Amino acid sequence: METATKPLTEAELQAIDAYWRAANYLTVGQIYLLDNPLLRQPLQPSDIKPRLLGHWGTSPGLNLIYAHLNRAIVAHDLDMIYVTGPGHGGPALVANTWLEGTYSELYPSVSLDEAGMAQLFRQFSFPGGIPSHVAPEVPGSIHEGGELGYSLSHAYGAAFDNPDLIVACVVGDGEAETGPLAGSWLANTFLSPVRDGAVLPILHLNGYKIANPTVLARIPEDDLLAMMRGYGYEPYVVAGDDPVEVHQRLAAVLEQSLAEITEIQRAARATGAHARPRWPMIILRTPKGWTGPREVDGLQVEDTWRSHQVPLGKVRTDPEQLAELERWLRSYRPEELFDATGAPVAELRDLPPTGERRMSANPHANGGVLRRDLVLPDFRDYGVGVTRHGGGLAEATRVLGEWVRDVIRANPDRFRLFGPDEVASNRLGAAFEVTDRAFTASIEETDEHLATHGRVVEVLSEHLCQGLLEGYLLTGRHGLFTSYEAFIHIVDSMFNQHAKWLKVTNHIPWRAPIASLTYLLSSHVWRQDHNGFSHQDPGFIDHVINKKAEVVRVYLPPDANTLLSVMDHCLRSRQYVNVVVAGKNEQPTWLDMDTAVRHCQRGLGIWEWASSDDGGQPDVVLACAGDVPTMETLAAVDLLRQHLPQLKVRVVNVVNLMRLQPESEHPHGLPDAQFDTVFTTDRPIIFAFHGYPWLIHRLTYRRTNHDNLHVRGYKEEGTTTTPFDMVMLNDLDRFHLVIDVIDRVPGLGPAAAGLRQAMVDARHECREYTRRHGEDHPRVRDWVWPS
Amino acid sequence: METATKPLTEAELQAIDAYWRAANYLTVGQIYLLDNPLLRQPLQPSDIKPRLLGHWGTSPGLNLIYAHLNRAIVAHDLDMIYVTGPGHGGPALVANTWLEGTYSELYPSVSLDEAGMAQLFRQFSFPGGIPSHVAPEVPGSIHEGGELGYSLSHAYGAAFDNPDLIVACVVGDGEAETGPLAGSWLANTFLSPVRDGAVLPILHLNGYKIANPTVLARIPEDDLLAMMRGYGYEPYVVAGDDPVEVHQRLAAVLEQSLAEITEIQRAARATGAHARPRWPMIILRTPKGWTGPREVDGLQVEDTWRSHQVPLGKVRTDPEQLAELERWLRSYRPEELFDATGAPVAELRDLPPTGERRMSANPHANGGVLRRDLVLPDFRDYGVGVTRHGGGLAEATRVLGEWVRDVIRANPDRFRLFGPDEVASNRLGAAFEVTDRAFTASIEETDEHLATHGRVVEVLSEHLCQGLLEGYLLTGRHGLFTSYEAFIHIVDSMFNQHAKWLKVTNHIPWRAPIASLTYLLSSHVWRQDHNGFSHQDPGFIDHVINKKAEVVRVYLPPDANTLLSVMDHCLRSRQYVNVVVAGKNEQPTWLDMDTAVRHCQRGLGIWEWASSDDGGQPDVVLACAGDVPTMETLAAVDLLRQHLPQLKVRVVNVVNLMRLQPESEHPHGLPDAQFDTVFTTDRPIIFAFHGYPWLIHRLTYRRTNHDNLHVRGYKEEGTTTTPFDMVMLNDLDRFHLVIDVIDRVPGLGPAAAGLRQAMVDARHECREYTRRHGEDHPRVRDWVWPS
Repeated sequence: METATKPLTEAELQAIDAYWRAANYLTVGQIYLLDNPLLRQPLQPSDIKPRLLGHWGTSPGLNLIYAHLNRAIVAHDLDMIYVTGPGHGGPALVANTWLEGTYSELYPSVSLDEAGMAQLFRQFSFPGGIPSHVAPEVPGSIHEGGELGYSLSHAYGAAFDNPDLIVACVVGDGEAETGPLAGSWLANTFLSPVRDGAVLPILHLNGYKIANPTVLARIPEDDLLAMMRGYGYEPYVVAGDDPVEVHQRLAAVLEQSLAEITEIQRAARATGAHARPRWPMIILRTPKGWTGPREVDGLQVEDTWRSHQVPLGKVRTDPEQLAELERWLRSYRPEELFDATGAPVAELRDLPPTGERRMSANPHANGGVLRRDLVLPDFRDYGVGVTRHGGGLAEATRVLGEWVRDVIRANPDRFRLFGPDEVASNRLGAAFEVTDRAFTASIEETDEHLATHGRVVEVLSEHLCQGLLEGYLLTGRHGLFTSYEAFIHIVDSMFNQHAKWLKVTNHIPWRAPIASLTYLLSSHVWRQDHNGFSHQDPGFIDHVINKKAEVVRVYLPPDANTLLSVMDHCLRSRQYVNVVVAGKNEQPTWLDMDTAVRHCQRGLGIWEWASSDDGGQPDVVLACAGDVPTMETLAAVDLLRQHLPQLKVRVVNVVNLMRLQPESEHPHGLPDAQFDTVFTTDRPIIFAFHGYPWLIHRLTYRRTNHDNLHVRGYKEEGTTTTPFDMVMLNDLDRFHLVIDVIDRVPGLGPAAAGLRQAMVDARHECREYTRRHGEDHPRVRDWVWPS
Repeated sequence: METATKPLTEAELQAIDAYWRAANYLTVGQIYLLDNPLLRQPLQPSDIKPRLLGHWGTSPGLNLIYAHLNRAIVAHDLDMIYVTGPGHGGPALVANTWLEGTYSELYPSVSLDEAGMAQLFRQFSFPGGIPSHVAPEVPGSIHEGGELGYSLSHAYGAAFDNPDLIVACVVGDGEAETGPLAGSWLANTFLSPVRDGAVLPILHLNGYKIANPTVLARIPEDDLLAMMRGYGYEPYVVAGDDPVEVHQRLAAVLEQSLAEITEIQRAARATGAHARPRWPMIILRTPKGWTGPREVDGLQVEDTWRSHQVPLGKVRTDPEQLAELERWLRSYRPEELFDATGAPVAELRDLPPTGERRMSANPHANGGVLRRDLVLPDFRDYGVGVTRHGGGLAEATRVLGEWVRDVIRANPDRFRLFGPDEVASNRLGAAFEVTDRAFTASIEETDEHLATHGRVVEVLSEHLCQGLLEGYLLTGRHGLFTSYEAFIHIVDSMFNQHAKWLKVTNHIPWRAPIASLTYLLSSHVWRQDHNGFSHQDPGFIDHVINKKAEVVRVYLPPDANTLLSVMDHCLRSRQYVNVVVAGKNEQPTWLDMDTAVRHCQRGLGIWEWASSDDGGQPDVVLACAGDVPTMETLAAVDLLRQHLPQLKVRVVNVVNLMRLQPESEHPHGLPDAQFDTVFTTDRPIIFAFHGYPWLIHRLTYRRTNHDNLHVRGYKEEGTTTTPFDMVMLNDLDRFHLVIDVIDRVPGLGPAAAGLRQAMVDARHECREYTRRHGEDHPRVRDWVWPS
């Protein structure tokens, strides 16, 4: 079934074409013009920017789609946002937001008149102005599109739990070559037509990247259609280079697609049948750089890669090019588009929707304004009873799971859990007592906790998990991403982009704060019992703290109660990326809930109950961060107390890694005086760290006592072996920590020499035992902190 | 056209089934047994490993495929390797390599008899033994499969320039959900049927991941077939759970696929027509954990996610499970499979190929043995003439491009350039004088430098570029990956896995060294004129140096001649990952070729010609690393020499970042005494660095003079602006460096105070000029080092 081949009346056609021409005009103006925005005088070299920076090629397509969506929004009163995969087409989106009036509302100096237009042009890609991409500064954007690959996952994340929203998502054919994008088409397997909104993918085949044709534009069209059907979509093709024909065809296809979306949702919602429908999608095959210069210097530019950035590069110095630019600009007939004041003529102002129906003013695209804080059950009620330090064992993430379950229950419309098939494996399975995994492909009888309307999204793609969660957060909701520690590096670059987005939005007054993106990294480096070396990498923390201190937080809770406290804090926070590393295996429970809360509030502190310095100066500081290093440190302290009872030991535990940095570097940084009080100014510090040891040096190199700091951590040694063998391979084990103490504290006498040798022997004995029996020596396996 | 439905004779069927049973038996044995490998006595708890670690679910499928490929290799004398996407099925591959005899040849203690079988079982996932995955220790592996997503790109990379090779690539349906894998199917767009070998993808739909069904197993089969046709393949389905039927069908489909590959290659090679054919691929839909326990504790295990790891988890303590394990093992009828000595019976030994036809002994899977060093033209002949320091300008990568062109020309069978659509943009376009971009989809008249047989692989997927290059290197060839600096983070985790592979292979005697993986990161953080903040991230270096020092190298050549020298060194190296950061924009040429070579050999050194300490002790050291920081440093020195002529300045340039580390940390580390000589023990050091400043602190915190080190670098500030505004935003500019000197050198007197204010004013003036004119102030744009 397809609708009329010419759905637009002549008037509608004229209006939409005028709107498109206006947006194209404003796009070209931004790339080139310093002044003379309405060409009231013939163009002069002095009207031209000295540096021509920006991307024309994708822009006419983006403008075309925007104009048509605007018509449809008005015709059907749609709640719609626009995700711009080819985000380098920034001037196109800026042009549309100005035409809609939103830009001037948010940036009054860029008014809807000739002066404003001049400012609009001048500021683009100009020092002190605005970036060239669909960056956070652009109204209506939730997706900068600087790094390609994430448009579709952002779009699906935005559509979750927004049943009335349609997310139009333009996917560039360059972006379509990326792995993350290729892996996102099947996100429709997690979208419920009952509870969620719709995504309308628009694959823009303009045929070229920076310097090459694109793959999808050059495979047989039958293959491309088969691929889209294979992904579960019904593809509609719009192809051509005649504007009139393309307008009619695009309008027809859009009407068809919207009708199908309406019908899919109506039918599903009437029957409650969530199963995956065949959603429509659009393939738009129009020339790259359409309506721009056909040829430059004898070489074809329109409809080739040569139109990717700035088609005419020598406008300021070459009079012919200057004339060509003027012809190009005048080809849009600006005199018909803008009135004497420079404002868009009434016909243009009538086409787009108004108020919050404008895609540039839709509150979903400024999600912070829709954000409602989570209802959080009191995490203290979920704690593990701890009557003596280290007296019990708990799987921290399993304890957390019960709280997460009730977070899900208490927030059925705005909280989701994302993970690559690891929610159960990371022992958050309690979530499945109140919800299921979302899955709209076929479900079989033997499946467990799988349902079309589940609130847990599990797909074996860290990229997709991250993209969906970002889309969900950016539109004002909340979530948690749980993953293997090593493989979270898969989304290093997506984290980069999100952190940059947060940093920039912190300085844009009209952008309301969104919920933080929180990672729970379990299945960490020290417990890869099944998998070994390829699964061992604690370096995501190192990566994260390269980003602006104002947007990143890293926590290493040592046990179950501290994990609860930290996670409660994270889910209340805004505008951060929180990284929480916590094991899923049984570990001693060190702190009762009240102590845990106070410890987490301080971020780091002396554990007096484990120390033997009686509040005075210690001989040595044993510091630790992370669950496994904390246990090894306390086991080392136990050994020291037994065998060197006169040694004054201080135990410091670090939960909030940012506390180690100077105040000047991070808002959480501990003042130097306090740091010196805790770590002393001159005693040896043996620091047992969860990750790569140099990270601790990097955070502390300006501290007074840094020269006495000695860090043990993961030094890239490991295989499929036992937990204790893993810490031994990296010299992080209790015996080695004791050796480190003996080697660094002067004047310990002959008892220490004997103990040192005993430690060397113990390491040997443990290694031999493990190689013989395949499990850890009982003396380490069964160790408990003495009461 | 399809061949016989029952291609196997009864004898062949029996043989292949026996081989499959043997491999399954050996797989289960590895997961469970410490002893009693042939079940000569009833199983006892003491025969069972204390920790049951490994993955059964995928293994029977991997074994089935291996057996059938072996039959086909013998039948057609094929040159074939096996890429195991589900690399967690390590015991399956180990089992097959033992059956083939290769394992015992390489590891004589694991002999082909009962004692060897016992050792084979015991060592698996056991302390001191072997990892659980298809790690480098496994003969025939080029792909560990620990992190999922890269099997198909490795396979295609292996097939490039190996016309007689067939790469069988098993893709798990879990892995198929990842973005990188989804983006790899279309790698067939870069494979020439004339010059390259073939890839035979085998999508193993066993239906489940760790805890969930897989997406591809649950979408309609018509959709899956359409998807594969859309990707350009001809899919053949093998489905079932009756071994006899599946054997016949798989054999038939394999014969069909191999016949099609032969015909495709014959036809293409007869006519020289390289265009993309429709390659066959196989969809194998068999139960997860096939032939394992059907039910455990009343829950279905076979054909569900519950068979993913260890189906019977309590064998050691639960007599019923122990009996069930024994029934399971005996169901393979080991008495028919192994003779009295424990060796495979003759029937089994006859099935697989022999010598290098064994997939486990194929030299392509130990690429170092096939590696032939590159023929490298003398890079000195390509240098830029430098008659005085800083007297000229050059685009370093453009200069390099001419040498790369001739490297391509001199090595037409074993060198390729990979990049995400950026070879021309990164100014290596000279390559296109001798070759083209590979592209086997349709080519149009207007396309440039695009050909089915090109040696440059450009696809807008860093994942695919990296995976293809890794596959190419691992099979004994050479290459270079050029990319935007910021977006190389996209492959952070792929780099991790490759670095881990290199580290492990360094300690496996039979693995021959392979060529290094070299990145050329151009379009770097300081010159994102078109793109701005989202394209600015110099942190890949930080990420890289977390890996073992023995396998990573980082270079920051400051100009064209040093880039040539560094790159020559990199392309000669083996078993490293080399990261080279060098700009593509015009920069001063500082060193003539002889000086450049000496400077690069030293890795860092004093630039006497720029210094004013006359070989004595300086008042201040100005150090720099990277092209832009070097220019700013020299401009600062110029200012200091003009305005504070009495100040003794020493200029140190760092090319090889690893030189900054202590000798104990990195083999390239400069001895402390030399470091102290260069950097002094007590003078202020102002270090202008290309990347995040704390990296320099991390590398140098143990050095004597670290307390006096002050680093400027990228501090995550940027937008779309001019080059000089970028350095100013990050306080890396010449004026700020002068201020840093003045603030840190005591006793400079009133002239310095005046200069300091002049520098503050200059920054202000430059910023204002840029905001007014949109380009940098002539005083910085036109600056040249004084002759």
